[in-house]
Formats: sequence, structure tokens, C-alpha cells
Amino acid sequence: MTEYRWERDSLGEKAVPKEAYYGIHALRAKDNFPVSGQKPHRELLWALGVVKQAAASANTAVGLLPPEKGEAIERAAAEFASGRFDDQILVDAYAGGAGTPLNMNVNEVIANRALEILGFEKGSYHIIHPLEHVNLSQSTNDVFPTAIKVAAIKLVRRLSQAMARLQGALQRKEKEFASILKIGRTEMQDAVPITLGQEFGAWAEAVARDWWRLYKVEERLRQVNLGGTAVGTGLNASRRYIQLVTDKLRELTGFGLARAENLVEATQNTDIFAEVSGLVKTAAVNLAKIASDLRFLSSGPRAGIGEIRLPAVQVGSSIMPGKVNPVIPEMVTQVAIQVMANDVAISQACAWGNLELNPFLPLIAHNLLTSTEMLANAALILAERCVEGIEADRERCEELLHRSCGLITAFVPYIGYERAAEIVKEALERDKRVEEVLLEKGLFSPEEIAAITSPQEVTTPGIAGIRYFAQRKTAKEGIRDGSESSRKDLAR
Amino acid sequence: MTEYRWERDSLGEKAVPKEAYYGIHALRAKDNFPVSGQKPHRELLWALGVVKQAAASANTAVGLLPPEKGEAIERAAAEFASGRFDDQILVDAYAGGAGTPLNMNVNEVIANRALEILGFEKGSYHIIHPLEHVNLSQSTNDVFPTAIKVAAIKLVRRLSQAMARLQGALQRKEKEFASILKIGRTEMQDAVPITLGQEFGAWAEAVARDWWRLYKVEERLRQVNLGGTAVGTGLNASRRYIQLVTDKLRELTGFGLARAENLVEATQNTDIFAEVSGLVKTAAVNLAKIASDLRFLSSGPRAGIGEIRLPAVQVGSSIMPGKVNPVIPEMVTQVAIQVMANDVAISQACAWGNLELNPFLPLIAHNLLTSTEMLANAALILAERCVEGIEADRERCEELLHRSCGLITAFVPYIGYERAAEIVKEALERDKRVEEVLLEKGLFSPEEIAAITSPQEVTTPGIAGIRYFAQRKTAKEGIRDGSESSRKDLAR
Amino acid sequence: MTEYRWERDSLGEKAVPKEAYYGIHALRAKDNFPVSGQKPHRELLWALGVVKQAAASANTAVGLLPPEKGEAIERAAAEFASGRFDDQILVDAYAGGAGTPLNMNVNEVIANRALEILGFEKGSYHIIHPLEHVNLSQSTNDVFPTAIKVAAIKLVRRLSQAMARLQGALQRKEKEFASILKIGRTEMQDAVPITLGQEFGAWAEAVARDWWRLYKVEERLRQVNLGGTAVGTGLNASRRYIQLVTDKLRELTGFGLARAENLVEATQNTDIFAEVSGLVKTAAVNLAKIASDLRFLSSGPRAGIGEIRLPAVQVGSSIMPGKVNPVIPEMVTQVAIQVMANDVAISQACAWGNLELNPFLPLIAHNLLTSTEMLANAALILAERCVEGIEADRERCEELLHRSCGLITAFVPYIGYERAAEIVKEALERDKRVEEVLLEKGLFSPEEIAAITSPQEVTTPGIAGIRYFAQRKTAKEGIRDGSESSRKDLAR
Amino acid sequence: MTEYRWERDSLGEKAVPKEAYYGIHALRAKDNFPVSGQKPHRELLWALGVVKQAAASANTAVGLLPPEKGEAIERAAAEFASGRFDDQILVDAYAGGAGTPLNMNVNEVIANRALEILGFEKGSYHIIHPLEHVNLSQSTNDVFPTAIKVAAIKLVRRLSQAMARLQGALQRKEKEFASILKIGRTEMQDAVPITLGQEFGAWAEAVARDWWRLYKVEERLRQVNLGGTAVGTGLNASRRYIQLVTDKLRELTGFGLARAENLVEATQNTDIFAEVSGLVKTAAVNLAKIASDLRFLSSGPRAGIGEIRLPAVQVGSSIMPGKVNPVIPEMVTQVAIQVMANDVAISQACAWGNLELNPFLPLIAHNLLTSTEMLANAALILAERCVEGIEADRERCEELLHRSCGLITAFVPYIGYERAAEIVKEALERDKRVEEVLLEKGLFSPEEIAAITSPQEVTTPGIAGIRYFAQRKTAKEGIRDGSESSRKDLAR
Repeated sequence: MTEYRWERDSLGEKAVPKEAYYGIHALRAKDNFPVSGQKPHRELLWALGVVKQAAASANTAVGLLPPEKGEAIERAAAEFASGRFDDQILVDAYAGGAGTPLNMNVNEVIANRALEILGFEKGSYHIIHPLEHVNLSQSTNDVFPTAIKVAAIKLVRRLSQAMARLQGALQRKEKEFASILKIGRTEMQDAVPITLGQEFGAWAEAVARDWWRLYKVEERLRQVNLGGTAVGTGLNASRRYIQLVTDKLRELTGFGLARAENLVEATQNTDIFAEVSGLVKTAAVNLAKIASDLRFLSSGPRAGIGEIRLPAVQVGSSIMPGKVNPVIPEMVTQVAIQVMANDVAISQACAWGNLELNPFLPLIAHNLLTSTEMLANAALILAERCVEGIEADRERCEELLHRSCGLITAFVPYIGYERAAEIVKEALERDKRVEEVLLEKGLFSPEEIAAITSPQEVTTPGIAGIRYFAQRKTAKEGIRDGSESSRKDLAR
Repeated sequence: MTEYRWERDSLGEKAVPKEAYYGIHALRAKDNFPVSGQKPHRELLWALGVVKQAAASANTAVGLLPPEKGEAIERAAAEFASGRFDDQILVDAYAGGAGTPLNMNVNEVIANRALEILGFEKGSYHIIHPLEHVNLSQSTNDVFPTAIKVAAIKLVRRLSQAMARLQGALQRKEKEFASILKIGRTEMQDAVPITLGQEFGAWAEAVARDWWRLYKVEERLRQVNLGGTAVGTGLNASRRYIQLVTDKLRELTGFGLARAENLVEATQNTDIFAEVSGLVKTAAVNLAKIASDLRFLSSGPRAGIGEIRLPAVQVGSSIMPGKVNPVIPEMVTQVAIQVMANDVAISQACAWGNLELNPFLPLIAHNLLTSTEMLANAALILAERCVEGIEADRERCEELLHRSCGLITAFVPYIGYERAAEIVKEALERDKRVEEVLLEKGLFSPEEIAAITSPQEVTTPGIAGIRYFAQRKTAKEGIRDGSESSRKDLAR
Repeated sequence: MTEYRWERDSLGEKAVPKEAYYGIHALRAKDNFPVSGQKPHRELLWALGVVKQAAASANTAVGLLPPEKGEAIERAAAEFASGRFDDQILVDAYAGGAGTPLNMNVNEVIANRALEILGFEKGSYHIIHPLEHVNLSQSTNDVFPTAIKVAAIKLVRRLSQAMARLQGALQRKEKEFASILKIGRTEMQDAVPITLGQEFGAWAEAVARDWWRLYKVEERLRQVNLGGTAVGTGLNASRRYIQLVTDKLRELTGFGLARAENLVEATQNTDIFAEVSGLVKTAAVNLAKIASDLRFLSSGPRAGIGEIRLPAVQVGSSIMPGKVNPVIPEMVTQVAIQVMANDVAISQACAWGNLELNPFLPLIAHNLLTSTEMLANAALILAERCVEGIEADRERCEELLHRSCGLITAFVPYIGYERAAEIVKEALERDKRVEEVLLEKGLFSPEEIAAITSPQEVTTPGIAGIRYFAQRKTAKEGIRDGSESSRKDLAR
Repeated sequence: MTEYRWERDSLGEKAVPKEAYYGIHALRAKDNFPVSGQKPHRELLWALGVVKQAAASANTAVGLLPPEKGEAIERAAAEFASGRFDDQILVDAYAGGAGTPLNMNVNEVIANRALEILGFEKGSYHIIHPLEHVNLSQSTNDVFPTAIKVAAIKLVRRLSQAMARLQGALQRKEKEFASILKIGRTEMQDAVPITLGQEFGAWAEAVARDWWRLYKVEERLRQVNLGGTAVGTGLNASRRYIQLVTDKLRELTGFGLARAENLVEATQNTDIFAEVSGLVKTAAVNLAKIASDLRFLSSGPRAGIGEIRLPAVQVGSSIMPGKVNPVIPEMVTQVAIQVMANDVAISQACAWGNLELNPFLPLIAHNLLTSTEMLANAALILAERCVEGIEADRERCEELLHRSCGLITAFVPYIGYERAAEIVKEALERDKRVEEVLLEKGLFSPEEIAAITSPQEVTTPGIAGIRYFAQRKTAKEGIRDGSESSRKDLAR
């Protein structure tokens, strides 16, 4: 049978299971917020533990806590950070109170664990009190925003690294597919030639930009308001503690943290979370675009585009045998959609802060940390379980390129836009290739066509074939209605 | 030491823990989708279990499954529905594959549990096969949308009931506070008088509308595509099975389900989820508005509005003693923000479906079910832990009403808009009540002022005091510059 | 040179161009809100005019306005409704003030036009005053929400009709393409056969549901709060006016309007706008899905899917001759994206209302009306300039169907899922059709294959070919590993 | 009577009004896209003009255009940029075609204006052709993204400057109100003291961060893909032109533009627009928060908080005389909500790009440019018409501070959290100030209370009053239950 101890707060008394590390505040929160069943993010709990450890260390150093108690609290906080007591957190991720219930719960767990370390019974708060000792010199309002930033740095780094990993995978494919010529598509319609490598290179570049953005934005997260207490004025925190605590936190995390210059504003403003979320969302936008392209290019296997094959990682249907679906890109898309949606939640929550504090910090934290972690996971999975195993179907690429009328554009400098448009029309009607029609009409010789449509010529800047004509010194005169000067002049 | 059995699919072989109910498809999904750590929603698992039970029952009835096997599958499915095997679900809520990995996982668990029931070893798929037997006559593409609808009906009902509960709580307060006169506010500025009961009544009315909307929308969710198999054409499902399976599902759930007339469209279109989500979101909008008003009206306790007091349910600060915050409304706001954001995810996912199927059904399901459940919880908590305990501060309401210039509007029919505006200006400058200024200027007698400003007069339709003047037959002549006829004429 | 008249309000004086119909309030708004350059929506101006006309009519009928003045105001309001004085509206669509500046501006224009009608100089407000006469018995807070609802009804009807028109166009194509067999696709991968008609039919069905939803939701918009004045208590509006004014408005609009039962709640709550917007958004979701499918199916013309051809309505490229793009679906997608985004704005604005009034009504109105109108236009254009001209490429549909392995699913009831998966694997590796492999392996005769894969059989419910086998009384014994009973038993 | 000329394109012929500068492509677009009635953003038209001017200049310089024609085109393009021919743009902001119809329309207008300059009839395209000459070396796909970036730089600068302006206004108020002590509020509940200046300073700091972000992000917009033509491979653009054209554009705009290193990726990826929009949205978030605080603090004037007074800029009600509303903050909130919503549209559009091009660029451009401009206008108006005229009500601030129990926190270091909580409870119950209760109970002398609650002490970091006790060398022993060391030790 469960034994209980009694705890009280200004609202009254409650029985707490004797062996519980949590206390009355956590129990109240459990009763008040049976909302989502979701716990606060693991990395947020880690960060709260580390912040508590730093505070205890600073409090001890400036003499506010006696060494023995201070060290017990530090050790308990470190254990809490490690995840050992996560099951003692009863507060829902969507609890109200701007983080106070969670901070209270953490204070209780650390206090009781510290008591245990010192050999006291849980609940002996006259020895170590959740507020008087564990929360000493602190307020939820400086602890919580600081912890969100610390957790966000950790996860933003993880996302940044995942994007770098994905970039690498895409670049390897860029190289591998550098010589595979294919039709480029704009608005899903056949356009002009491109290489498959160029397509992977374009994705890699976007991802590289994400990596860089996320790498850079970390510095915005480094200004913490620890020491500001309730509203950033630092009331009740000794100046020496304030000077010390951020140093301690920097040491413990290894992150380049600094005290915000204006603690009042750093307590109440949450635009930095909106900014970071905006960049995480931008990465999601890029991943969604890549995932969508992968799904399109691998459509088929036979009645679709089929220019690439994604690795088969999951049987695709419970009824259609042999079906393999682009499940990794689909997962990525779903994560991207969720990240974009969570960004809406974050923006709205940040926008509706009030005066000295944003009451919706728990929501902001939960969405930001969840989004960042999910996207990092998605990017890694995309790299490892999809991109790295992609195979090109070179024959299919060639087949579609030559079926298309995409090479006609290369002839426009020679015959003009309108005449070219007529050639295309005829080719489509007669089900011919445009090169055939051009040849039939005697507009170009086979050699000229070959020169103009060589892969190198049609996929790099410049007028395709211009050097060929220049070398031959035989550039056709007036081949282009609208041309004002001989095209060979351009061939420098 | 864990013992293993070997399972194979068209992609190869994998070792599965011997005691596991899940199989190779689930294991692959676990490897492929370590994304969010979130499991599919409990009610979705329930619904999948019930659908499998209905399918087994129908398959047995039409002779596709021999009774013994059919019954074992039914029983296993029922057990699965109850939640007993939730830990055997390895598929992440954000897995790709349009629900196939989850359906596969469920098939495996049910097959192995059925085998166990029949006394066979797990993995004896030649006896009961996850696809050939458990999934018989089905495709993920009819099972999964059907299960989402069934789960949504359950949760929409819960939300609808929660809204009804909240409406009741608000209406009781409407009655309780019917006689408390206070200043109404528009754009946060003092407007005209209203009763506190009217304010609670207005909230109750919005919530009643939500209740009704959610009650009505259930019928949209009742058309299921079970029997449509892969793309809604019903390929591979026997006609007799198709005729029977929805009846079975209706019996098992007690919900008024029916087979959709056009199974092809019911398989691919997801607008019904967008519609339902839009209504859940509308309920969130109302709750957010109410929560915001509650926070404003209870602001203080001393340096704010303070017209009402919310019950204290949580100590409000780790540093500021005695502080109590509106934590329940804050929780409600956060949930509402999340529901609104999830609606964005749902809309986007529904919009980007492709042809015969929406690949993002797992995301749609997860967001819709999570939103609906969270909002139901939030509404219930709001009713029980906040609204029911709200106390009015009658004195404060009166004090603020009389500090305000809100009564001036009642005099406009007698003195005109512009003159009234001047009175207000003077009252503000001289820090007087408008009634005092009106009296000073000899515009009205004390009795007339009392008649015009009586609570009944100023909070119900009509020109305040008009009957008083009519009865006295002494309505002031031409008191209102712009008036064309004697005001007493109106007093009928 | 412009001549001026002087006008004053409680904030001071301003010179107004002598010929202007607008007055000082409009001028102030022009100075205060140079924000977007966008005017309030035309239909909102129409609705405001009609509301003013109804109010003048009711005021006259109950004797609050003398007939001559009342009729002049009525006529001026009708003219305003017609759009004749739109250039006199100086208020930006995003102006603050919950609609008051716009209502003031409208009052001014109507007052001055009525003065003109009566032969007075503009600005002779002692004769007809914008507030004392035009706004008599009204407040912005009942006029504005009422006008939004009236305008919304008009536009929701237009959208509903546009959806009906689109549904018709899709259904005609459903019929036209009923016999074109093609491969169905799920997750962009080849699935099982379907007809092109079924695809158009599925789109038509979703659009039909939109039509119905929008048709039904009109009734939510019919409860108006006219007569409630400032906060819904009806202060300053005579009871007889209140009883009459909604009748007048109903007559003028021909819409089935009624006075809301609870005017206080109808003044402050905006969930009905959120609800309507949610349904408009749902229609956008469907249009986006259809547009996306159209773009996919018409991709090519040669290096894509190419199963359908959209009418060419715009030259597709400034550099690539002969290119034609799916510009109508692209437009539809853009409109759908905007409508979804505007729904976010509406939800957020509705959620953040305060107490007796929502200060963000102008934003709500602008987004709701703009979204509804744009979507109606987009749906009509889609019907007329795209869907009606779509041509099917029957040969291409057949070619892709037979390239695909989509027919294999029809054989699963006979040979089981796993064996079928092996056949697909072999077919893909050897670049054969599945029918060929099945034939080679002697599993089925050509007749049997023909029976199983007949268009009728594979696109309608049931096990394909089952009747053929039943008739022949020669159903293969034990052809399906997992089968428990002879398949012919099913053939009833 | 309108006279016509005939124009033709590959789809057929159309009659164009003889005097029109636009041509057949524009006319088709007008027929195809009667969607929103909104024109493309003015600054986008400006940017397109400038890009065309740069292209003509580069084409002339490398000999592709003869000087006379080149110069005519340049001049026509410059005129177009100036806005002179905006009425010749017939293309809706939501037109499909990834910008092609707009680019075509611009080409036509410039060609016809250039013809006019040279003395030819409009439509003499054999002399100057919209595509062959005006669009020479270009594709919509390099012109359009480049123009969006150029326009965005211009508007982002404007927004950045507006934020700087607002920051200045807030900082002046920070100084002005530096000595006004008031109660800080967290979660709308009385917290601890702060100065009104600190509140304005906190807003200023957030705005300063916005300014900096927007200033910095310009560099992301400077990499343009001009010269990349259709898909970024630069097909058909001569190398010398490519080298030159960005220089020309840099000269014409004065912006530090450079050619993107990877033109293929710069053509298809739109994450930079999502990134910029995310930062614009972040600025919106801050403005919404400030606007919300201003509305709260100025609520009243008598029955609200009333700590500040916003300048009266608009009469607030058509029915309530003397009412003044926070119309500027309300406008700001509406703009912020719209900007947040437009960011959703932009993200979604960017996410759903396909392969070599994003077909939804027109939507992206319209939303990004509109959002940025509106927010810049809103910020400027907020600075000039609201913040600069804000007056503080010092007495009201003091009154509320002393009514609150907010000073209790300053005593916690001396008496502990729990005892302090009891004091608050008692003070609230007995309707006393906490200082009175502390005095009554003999816990502190009046001097000590004064020392602890001095404005400087309670609004700056540290334990309030600690130096006072240190100096007196009489710090009470053990006054705080939980204290481990004499508090005077802290007083260094």
C-alpha cells in the first residue's frame, strides 16, 4: 500500500506518495492539466536540470547556500538533467502558468533527491526547500526562458548537423549523376536539358543554406536572462550571483552563453523563438520541396516518370503485391507540414505575450523543440535511408529527353522564337523529334545539330553551338530573323 | 537472452523477437521512421482494431474465412482495440506510406495474437497470415480512412459533450450574475452598461453553437469507404463481403455508419477531415476568446480589472509569494493555439493529396484526433476547474461602472451626440461622473437621471427612460437638437 | 483651386473639400491609416449601403425621421450601395477602430448625398447629420457585423454557384471519359486500374460536397444583430425600430435574415465567420487537390504523364517556344493557398476578440469576402477555361496501364499476395508485363487472363473474373495458398 | 470608336486596341485570370522595368542589340519602371504561369513604347519584338526571381528604416518615463515593480533586433539568377551578356547585387523568400505584442488600467459620445495578423515548388512585397501617430503600484517565501497594503521598509535594501527561516 507524506502550499494541503520525488505543486498540476498526455520535451528537462545545477553552484560560491547543501543540490540537478527522474515530472506540456508548474515540479524533484543524497527523508523541506534553496535567487521567469534557449541550442545544432549530413549525401549524388543528361521541367512541363547531377546539386545548395542559417542563428539564442528573476529587474538575486550564474551555465553546457544586456526585455520578448522557428520552418520548406521532387522523379515504376529509383525500405501495400512507395519522402513531407504548422503556433503565441512575460512559453518551447528535433531526424533519415541509395535510370532519362521537344530552345538564337514555336507544333502533331523536323526542313546539317545539342553546350551558359559556328567561320547568314549582327561575333 | 524467429517480405528477411506480436513490417517501420517518438493516437488504434474485427466477421460470414480462424482473428482484434497490445505498435505517428506500415503492424499483431489464441507459435503465418487472413478483402486504403472516421466520431462526440458541459457551467453563472451591473467594454475602452450575467451568457451562446456544430458534423464522418480496397473500385473484395462489412462495423461501434456511395471518391478525398478540423478549430476560437476575456476580467487582483475572481488552483510563482495566475485559461489558450495550428497542417495535407489517395493520412489523423481530444479535455477542465468556481466582485463592478462615463450614451437620445461628447470631455477633465455634470448643468433632475440609468433600462433594448418621460407626460421639449418629433411619441 | 468647408468633431476641426461627400471622420482615417492602399471590399460597401437604407426606412416608419429626410437618406443609401460613391471611401481595409471609421465615412457620404438630393449644400449637418440622422438608432457595432454577414451571404452564394458550375463540368467529363481505362496511382506509384471517368467523378463528388456545405452554411449567416447598438443591449434603439429594421433589410436584400435571439452575443462573437471561412477553406483544399492532379496528369507533353491535355490558353514561355503550361490550375492553386492563409488570419482575429466586441472585424471582413470572391472566380475559370476543354489521350492511358504492373492485384485472390509479389519482381527485372509472366509460368490461360483483366471486372467491386470461373465450374483448385475454400463459392 | 491592330502568337490571333501598349499575351492573361482584381505590386513592376533596362543595356553592350534599338528599349524600360505605364498591365496578381504572363505583358509594353520612341506604330514587332528584342537573352525564369529580389530589397530597407524610426520613438519615451515607478505584470497579474521607462525600453529593444535582422537579411537577397535563363543553365544567353547584365542591374539599382554562383539552384529554390518572410513575420510578432500591451495599458479611460494615454486620433464611436479607441494599435495588430498569415501562404508556396522552377512565384512575390510594405507603413504610423504622443499617468501608476501587493517580493530574502505568502493573503483579505501588515506585525521599521522599497532598489538587480542593512551593520539576525548566512554578507 502506498504510504503518504503531507505537503502544503498557500492553497492548502495534499498527500504525496512517500516515495515520490515530486511534491504538492506537481500534484496540483497533474490534477489541473490532464490535457494532452504529452510531457515537456526531454531536452527542456535536461536544460532545466543544468540551469538548476548552475544556480546551485553560483549560490554556493557566493555563500547563499552552505557547501554541503549546495553540492547535494548540484548533484541532484545533474542527475535530473540526465533524465533519471523524468517519470517524476507530472506536468503536461500544455500546462498554464508560463512554466511555473514545471519549474516547481523540477524544484521539488531536485530538493527531494538532494535530501535523499544527504540522508534525509523526502519532504524534509526545512533542510532543503524546493523554493528557498533549489530555486534560490531564481524565478520561473528567468529560469524557464533560459532553459528553452539552452535546449534550443542543443537541438538547433543537431538539426544543423543533420542538414550538413544531408548536404553531403546530395553532393555525392550530384557528382555521381553529373553526366546523366535529362529533360529539365518547369511547371511540370518539358523545358530544356539539364543533368541529373545539376538537380541534386540544386537541392544540396538549398540544404547548405539551411545548414549555414541554423549555424549562425545559434548566436541569437546565447543571450540568456538568468539572474533577471521575476520581470528582469533582478529583484532578489544578489549581484554577485547574477555575475556568476551565467558563467557556471556556460561551463556546464559548453555553449557560448552570455547574460543579456537588457534583462527586462529578454524576460518578456520571445521574438528570438519566432525567428529561430522561422528558420527551422525554412529548412522544412526546402525538405518538402526536395521530397516532392523525389516523389515525382521516382513515380512509376513504369507508368510514371521513373528517372530515379528510391531504395525500397518498406513493403508498399497490404493489397497490391510488389508495390514500393516513396515512404521516406512522404515522412519528410509530413514532418515539414507539421513544422510549418508549429511555426504558426509559435508565432501566434509569441505575438500574444503580455507585458513583462509571455504566458504561453510552455507552448512555444514544446513546439520549437519538437519541430527542431523532428526535422533533424527527418533530414538524417532522408540522407541515410533514401538519398544515399538513390539510383538513376540513365536510359529512361535519355528516352524522355529525346521524346521531349526540349532541345528546340537551343535553336532559337539561330531561327528565332516564332519559327521555333512552329517547329515544335509540327513535331508534336507529327509525333516526331524536333531535330528530325529541323533536319527535314534543311535548316541545319546533322553536324550542326550535333554541335548545338551536345550535352556540354545545352547545360552550361551561352548560346549552344556558337563556338562551333565561329570556328567554322561559316555561321549561317541571317539565320535568325530578329538578329542584328552575325552570331559568330558572339563567339568570343 | 532474446530468442528470435525469422520473417520475410518481398524486401528480404529480418529476425523478430520470438515473443513479439509485431512482425517484419513493423520492424522495418521502426528502423525507417525514428522521427517523433509519438505513437499513433490511441483512438486510432482502437478504431483499427474494430475495423479488423468487423472485416474478420464479414469474411467469416461470407465463407472467406473458416469459422475457427475467423473467430480467433475477431477476438484478437477486439483485444487489440481495447489497448492491450499498444506496446506492440512500433510505427511512428509521422511514418510515410499513407498508413500502410501501421496497417501492416496491426495485421501482424492481430495475426500473432490469433495464432496464440489457437495455440500456435507466433509467426506461423501459414495458419493465419497477416495479409492473407487478417487483411483479407481489405487494403490500407479503405481500412485506414475508415478507421480515422470511426476514431474521429468518438472524439468529436467527446468534444461535443465537453462543450455542452462548459455551456452548462457558463449558463449557471449567467443566472448567478444576472443582477450584477457593470461597464461593458469595446476595444478595451469603457462603453455602455451590461450585466456580468450577459457576459457569461454571450460566452455560453458561442459554446452552444460549437456543441451544435460538432453534433451535426458527425453525420459527415459516417460515410466510410470500407470495401473499396486499393482505390475505391473494390477490386478483390467480394461483393457479399462489401455488403456486409459496414453493417458489422456499425454494430460493433454503435455509430450510424454507412457505405459511401462513391467509394473511389471516398478513398481519395479528405475534405471531410478538413471540414471537421475547421469546426474543431472554430470551437478553439471561441475558447480562446473566452479565456482571453477571463484573463482580462480577473486581472489584478488589485492593480487590474478584478471584476471576477478565478478559483486559485496552482501557486502562481516560484519567487512572488501569494501570486495566483489564470493558469486554466492560459492552458486553454495554448490548446486553442495548437488546435488552430494543427488545422493548418491538416488543410495543407488535405490540399496536397494525389490522385487516388492522400499520402499524408497519418499526419491528418494524428492532428485531427489529437486536436479534438485536447480541446475536449481543455473545455472540461475549463468548466470544472475554472468557470464553476468563478466569483464576481459586485462592488468592484459597481465601482468601475460609476467611474466610467459609460452611462452618457443613455442620454444621447435626449441631448444629442455632440453635446453628449462635450459632457464626457468635461467629466474626464474635471474628474467627475457624467451624471454629476449633467445635474450641475441642470439638464436633468435627479429623478430623471435615475430613470434613465436604471439597470433594467440600460441593459435592455430601447431608449432608456423613455417610458418614464411618457408616463409623466412631461417629456422635455426639443431637448435633443437633432430630434424631429417629441420623444414621448416613441413611448409606446 | 479646391474650395473647402470646415467640419468639426470632438477632436477638433478640419477643412474638407467643398465638393466631397466624405467628411472629417473620413479625412482623419485617411491620415491615420495609409497602410495597404486596399479599399474595403465592394460587397461590404454594398451591404453597408443596404443596411443604412433599411435603418432609414425603419426610422422613418416609426416616426424617428421625418419622411422627407428619411426618404432622401434612403435614396442616398441605395445609390451608395450601387457603388456610385465608392471613390468617396477613404478608409483603408486595415484601419483600426472595429469598423467605426468606415461606418462614419459611409454616414458622411450618405448624409451629404441626401443633402444634395434635398437641395442643400454639403456639410449642412444641422439638416441631415451623419450621426444624428443617418446613423440614428445604430452603432457601428450592430451595423458592421450585420453588413459583413449580408455581404458574406451574397458571396457565399456566388461561390456555391461556381462550385455547382464546376461540378457540372467535371461530371460531363466523367461521362465522356467513362470508358477510358487507365492505371490508378497511389502515392504517385502505379496501383490498380481505374477509368479516367472515375477520376473526374471523384473530383466532381468533392466539389458537390462543397456546393452543399456552402449552400447550407448560409443559414448561419442569417442571424443579424441589427438593433443591438453598442454592445447588443439595444440601448438607444427604440423597440419598434428594432422590431422593424431587420424586416426592412430582409426585403431589400431578398435574403432570409432574422434578428439574432441574443443580440449581446451576436455583437461580440465572431465564430460564425471562422466557421464560414473554414468551409471556404475546405473548398480551397478540394480545388488545390484537383489542380494538383490536373498538373500531374497533363505533365509532359512528352516527357511526363500526358494522360490528359489541358486547353492551351496562354503561351507558356518567353524563351522556350511551343511550351504550354497548366496556367489555370496554377492560378487555382495560388488562390487556394491564399484562401488557406486568409483562414489563418480570420481564425486568429476571431480568437483575439475582447469582451463586448471584436476589434479586428475589418480584417475579418476583408479576408472572408476577398477569399470567397477569389475562390468563386477561380472555380468558374477552372470550369470554363480548363475542365471543359480537357481532352483525354486514350492511347497514352492504355500504354501506361499496360506498361504498369497494376493488373497483378486482380490475380491475388487466385495466387496469393506473396507469389504475386514475386511475379511483379520478375516482371520488373525482365522488363515484361505481368500477364506475360503469368502466362509463361502456366498459371493462367489467355482466356482466364482476359476474363480477370476485363475493364469492367477490374474497375468495379468484387473479385475480378470470379463469375467467369464460376460459370466454367472449373475454378482452379487450391490456386491460392492461403485460400480456405474454393473461390467459386464466392461467385454468387 | 476603338481601332484595333491584329496580333498573333502560337495559339492564334487577337485584336488589340491600336493605342494599347500591351499586346496579345496581356490580353489573353486578362481573359484567363479575372481572379482578384489585384495588380502585381508596384515595386515588382518597378523592378521588372529596371531588370529589362539592365538587360537591354547589356545586350547592346555586347552587340546583340543595335544601339538605336537598345537605347529605345532602355528608355522605355526606365519609363515603365517609373510607373508611367502601370495601367497597361492587365495581369492579375494571382495569374498562373510562374510569372510568364506578367513578363510577356511587360515585354509588350516596353516594345511598343520603344517603337513609339523610335517613331514606329505600335505592333511593328518586326522592328522591335517583345521576345526577340526586349526579352533577348532572358527567360521569365531568371527575370522574375531577380525582380522579386530587387523589389524585396527596396521594401525590406523601407521596413528596416521604419523599425529604426519606431525604435527611436520608443527610446525617447523610455527616457521620458524613466522615473515613473509602476507595478509590473506577469500573466496579467500584479507582479513586482518596474518603471514605465523599462517597459518602453523593452519594446524598443525588440524593435531594434528587428531592425538589425532586416538590415542583415538584405545580403541574402542580393544573389540573383539573371543570366540563368530557363532553368539556370544559361542556355541562349551569351557568356559576355551574362557577365555584364548583373553589373548593369547593380548600377541601376544601387543595390549590392551579384550573380548567384549556382544559377540552377537560384532559379528553382525559393527558401530565401521564406527566410525573409519569416523575419518580416518576426517583426510583425513584436509589433503585435507591443500593440497588445498598449491597448491593455491604455484601457479605460476610467474603468481600465489607464496607466498611459494614447493620442486621440479618431472619434471612437458612432453611438457612444466621447469614446476614443486605440485605433492605431488595432490597425497594427490587424496588419501583423495579415503578415503572419501571408507568411503561411509564402511557406506553403515555397514548399510546393517543382523541380527546376516554382510555379507559385507570383503568389510568393505578392505576399512578400505586400506584407513588407504594409508592415513598414504600420510601424511608421505607430511611431508617428501613437508612440510619440503617448502620455503617462504618473498618479495612476503610483496608485496601482501601491494598491498591489507587488512589493512583497522584495521582502522575501528577509522573511522567506512562505511567510511572505501569508502576509499577502492577509493583506488581500483585510484589504490592506502589504507594507502596512509588515509594519503592524513589527517585522520591519518604517525606515527599513522605505529602504527596501525604494524605486532604485526594487527595479535594479540585487536584493532590495541589502546595502542599507549592511551599512547599518544591524541586519536582523536569522530573519529569514531558510537563510544559512547573515544577509549582510551579501552586501558587498
